[in-house]
Amino acid sequence: MKLYTYFRSSAAYRVRIALNLKGIAVEMVPVQLVKDGGEQTKPDYLARNPQGLVPALELDDGTVLTQSLAIIEYLEQVRPMPRLVPPDPIMAAKVRAVALAIACDTHPLNNLRVLNYLKGPLGHSQAEVDAWYRYWIVEGGLQAVERLITGDPFCFGAAPTLADVVLVPQVFNARRFDVALDHLPKILAVDAACARLEAFAKAHPTQQADAA
Amino acid sequence: MKLYTYFRSSAAYRVRIALNLKGIAVEMVPVQLVKDGGEQTKPDYLARNPQGLVPALELDDGTVLTQSLAIIEYLEQVRPMPRLVPPDPIMAAKVRAVALAIACDTHPLNNLRVLNYLKGPLGHSQAEVDAWYRYWIVEGGLQAVERLITGDPFCFGAAPTLADVVLVPQVFNARRFDVALDHLPKILAVDAACARLEAFAKAHPTQQADAA
Repeated sequence: MKLYTYFRSSAAYRVRIALNLKGIAVEMVPVQLVKDGGEQTKPDYLARNPQGLVPALELDDGTVLTQSLAIIEYLEQVRPMPRLVPPDPIMAAKVRAVALAIACDTHPLNNLRVLNYLKGPLGHSQAEVDAWYRYWIVEGGLQAVERLITGDPFCFGAAPTLADVVLVPQVFNARRFDVALDHLPKILAVDAACARLEAFAKAHPTQQADAA
Repeated sequence: MKLYTYFRSSAAYRVRIALNLKGIAVEMVPVQLVKDGGEQTKPDYLARNPQGLVPALELDDGTVLTQSLAIIEYLEQVRPMPRLVPPDPIMAAKVRAVALAIACDTHPLNNLRVLNYLKGPLGHSQAEVDAWYRYWIVEGGLQAVERLITGDPFCFGAAPTLADVVLVPQVFNARRFDVALDHLPKILAVDAACARLEAFAKAHPTQQADAA
């Protein structure tokens, strides 16, 4: 399998963590999102993923799967252990709700193409764009996530789940933009617990071959 | 069970469709999102859903589930038939990818609180906000969704799936804001096929008790 990835894409980062947790080795294919208008906007890549976003997972038969959470649910079906979504339906819903609070309500507002729209068509300064970025990380999701998780030591108990897989890349983004997280102690504790696991450490943006 | 809903919320609309398709009756509890600063921002509602968003599904034991897609996956586990996510892992990933392309990359950009930020802190006119809204519906997701679905007659074949459940409310939003969809014939055909099903028709915003 091949994972089309970009070191700093938090959606690709999620899939890298999930692959590592499940012990699945794939070929990493870096996609240059920033240089020359972005490789993801070129016909070659759009043929694989019409959304022009990373990640995309290409299976050995050429089938391409897109959307990080759909890819992780696929991995969960074909390689169930260790489980990232608990079997109990209520616990599964709580885990998925945290993942979606970040994947739907936090991260998309700060995607590269959205920041470009704020700077381009809407003419905002870098300072205004940065304020937008910081606002949505906390108000968009992390503040609520702090109340939705137990955090002992992972979001929902003794082992990492899909919630941790999605939370850690968002915390990385928050730190990169100097967002204050001191008022979110459970999230900080979960992030620290995850950082001690090799599956998370190896998926970190700075550990990728395409890290700039 | 109780569904905290708002007639025009497309996330609540998704859950209404899924409940109808599965034949699950729930008590509908309307949440007034727009009047008086929004009932969803008040302590009573925040105690149920710290994100301050609809929908939320309250189970008979008082457990509250949030995030529309997490709620629908829960319903899929406790009431598997008719299936909204196909059992084949690759087909499941394709269905979820379409749902997520809308739920993550289209809808959140046009959420009420985001439009309020554009109007408030960023000082944009209604015309600029409307242009933003229209841009993200098409560029954010529907253009790619048109290429990801088969559309015969539903997104992925003979029966509606999670993809249709999420697509139809987004098409409703597009129409409400006069977004041209003529260049997306498969999406229009799917929407028409869904409209003929009672489960979709009864979930429509205009059919809700709280419709303004």
